[in-house]
Amino acid sequence: MTPSLGTVTPQQMHFAEPLPLASGAALAAGYHLVYETYGTLNAARSNAVLVCHALNAGAHVAGLDANGQTGWWDNLVGPGKPLDTNRFFVIGVNNPGSCFGSSGPMHINPANGRAWGADFPVVTVEDWVDAQARLVQRLGIERLAAVIGGSLGGMQALAWTLRHPARVQHCIAVATAPSLSAQNIAFNEVARRAIITDPDFHGGHYYAHGVVPRRGLRVARMIGHITYLSDDSMEAKFGRRIRRALGGDGVSGDDAPFAYTTQDIEFQIESYLRHQGDKFSEYFDANTYLLITRALDYFDPARAHGGNLAAAFEPARDNRFLLVSFTTDWRFAPARSREIVKALVDNRIAVSYAEIDAPHGHDAFLLDDARYHGVLRATFERVFAEVTGDV
Amino acid sequence: MTPSLGTVTPQQMHFAEPLPLASGAALAAGYHLVYETYGTLNAARSNAVLVCHALNAGAHVAGLDANGQTGWWDNLVGPGKPLDTNRFFVIGVNNPGSCFGSSGPMHINPANGRAWGADFPVVTVEDWVDAQARLVQRLGIERLAAVIGGSLGGMQALAWTLRHPARVQHCIAVATAPSLSAQNIAFNEVARRAIITDPDFHGGHYYAHGVVPRRGLRVARMIGHITYLSDDSMEAKFGRRIRRALGGDGVSGDDAPFAYTTQDIEFQIESYLRHQGDKFSEYFDANTYLLITRALDYFDPARAHGGNLAAAFEPARDNRFLLVSFTTDWRFAPARSREIVKALVDNRIAVSYAEIDAPHGHDAFLLDDARYHGVLRATFERVFAEVTGDV
Repeated sequence: MTPSLGTVTPQQMHFAEPLPLASGAALAAGYHLVYETYGTLNAARSNAVLVCHALNAGAHVAGLDANGQTGWWDNLVGPGKPLDTNRFFVIGVNNPGSCFGSSGPMHINPANGRAWGADFPVVTVEDWVDAQARLVQRLGIERLAAVIGGSLGGMQALAWTLRHPARVQHCIAVATAPSLSAQNIAFNEVARRAIITDPDFHGGHYYAHGVVPRRGLRVARMIGHITYLSDDSMEAKFGRRIRRALGGDGVSGDDAPFAYTTQDIEFQIESYLRHQGDKFSEYFDANTYLLITRALDYFDPARAHGGNLAAAFEPARDNRFLLVSFTTDWRFAPARSREIVKALVDNRIAVSYAEIDAPHGHDAFLLDDARYHGVLRATFERVFAEVTGDV
Repeated sequence: MTPSLGTVTPQQMHFAEPLPLASGAALAAGYHLVYETYGTLNAARSNAVLVCHALNAGAHVAGLDANGQTGWWDNLVGPGKPLDTNRFFVIGVNNPGSCFGSSGPMHINPANGRAWGADFPVVTVEDWVDAQARLVQRLGIERLAAVIGGSLGGMQALAWTLRHPARVQHCIAVATAPSLSAQNIAFNEVARRAIITDPDFHGGHYYAHGVVPRRGLRVARMIGHITYLSDDSMEAKFGRRIRRALGGDGVSGDDAPFAYTTQDIEFQIESYLRHQGDKFSEYFDANTYLLITRALDYFDPARAHGGNLAAAFEPARDNRFLLVSFTTDWRFAPARSREIVKALVDNRIAVSYAEIDAPHGHDAFLLDDARYHGVLRATFERVFAEVTGDV
């Protein structure tokens, strides 16, 4: 689908007050956030929708940026799209600690005039939501019509209802979980070890050495990618097809002879993963990778309530929820969304839940599936009816 | 369970003839295999059972070695155990390319007097089976009563019936697959990239540099370990418990405060994985890791038959099979064993299949589960009845 919003210009907002963090530290005064907006804020300032990003994304949600890059959720956000910018004022904001414009580890630490590197404070999902709440406030919006996010973005959408329940009405959380499982943490930890043990990491202060821990970033991205795709979709897309079948050297498809190599590419899936790793290592920041995977690890609203998730959701009693999961998502399986649904139902909180039968695994939340987008379109129709008082 | 075989002495067999390999290359003349035997070969030489090992094991199947280490399948093999050494002559053999005694990449390449390193020839499951067949022949055994293996060892057990069907009667293949899926190959490839891109790998010739690519081996092992355990067993064993709860510093269990760190250990699962990686990197050879994961990747008996697994098993029409899988094994799920069962049934080949409801994931094949061992015990009772003519 062609982006119909045209070129969008990112904006920056600076904050003179430090941001207190869950760790007890603070994001130093003078930090900034990059954000984009689409559509028009109505006179009542009641039609704003905040979009929260996951690991590998930022404020550029829809339309084209200055480099002609399409936003990461452009199939969802735009004129006439499920999140219709003719109706809603949509805000995309990059979280602090990220590497897509907002204050992050590659920026200057005012305390010593050098890049933050590994000294950038550890930020949590709750910290991000607090930072977003300040930005929304400064935009003159007392209450969001909705907050939406997928995966780690879904955690932020949930956290809005726990920390600022009166400042948002609808929470739409897609392909997410109430906390990481041991296996989820394990995958994050292996990726982090690959980065941290790369000799070019230099304890997180690689900027000063003029190097980047690319080897570690590549391996981290390859691991991540395996968990984003379903076993079935990987099988359908790559199976056991060998790489040279692509090369036009006369051997065809699955019958091409093996090269018998331990270090070179043999199968197409290897070529695909290496390519994903290479691309990622060209633009993603290693310290950001550590910070964001840790934010995932730490998210666990039930923790402060002795593991009782229903107790955690008590503050959200006046919010309305839509949870969406995908059958083949083994990173954040439907069972994890159902835990959240149960906690909401236990509180008699209004919740709709859609479990979409989709083959694409965790990545499905970014794709244009008709049933999935149908559910979102219907939900935003309802949200808009409330905004216009037409309920 | 205490090893009841006492101390076992490994033996070596040297081979004067080169071993032709699937790749078209050959294992050079003068290679050797390390093996162990348990029990006594009967006069008819009809009670021999070959045990095939998986990635991280060798010839030391049962009893104690000179260092007091228990064999890797000691819970299965010994006097009175399911594979009873009072009845059977059991053979464990280390495959060439491994790092547990048989000719491998750390040994001298006769062509240049230096360690083989990355030049050790690529070996396949079929090559290993051919090497094992020579050893069995030299031991004076025309026909094995059974061959048994789990995981990669199960692939070898299957390959025996395809390459040497007249030289074995029963095939017992546990927690295995007829080929790796794209996802299986993907995990192997990430592990290999971690090793190969470790600056201490030196293209596989690290022996000459007096270093070992430990960083890569650690990451590879951590990735592997995640796939050996089930999501549920990892959750039960570690959950989200934090590491410092172990440290006796006064904070207790799940309520201990977070340290908010991106580089240090926070959760117990991280500590466990790092420990596994550290241990493994102390003794496992990196070139062996590449060779063995490639042998896994290449195994695909259906390939030579246009993907028709039933056609591949035609040579095994006079063999008898037991397939065992474990419900929570997501590395080689029960569905993969059922593919093999179907191919056998399509050939009207005698096959029993046990799908064991066990929580431990892929690792279950090494554990002492009563139902699992019950099935194996009953099967070996039947094999022994045939050996003694008591059928």
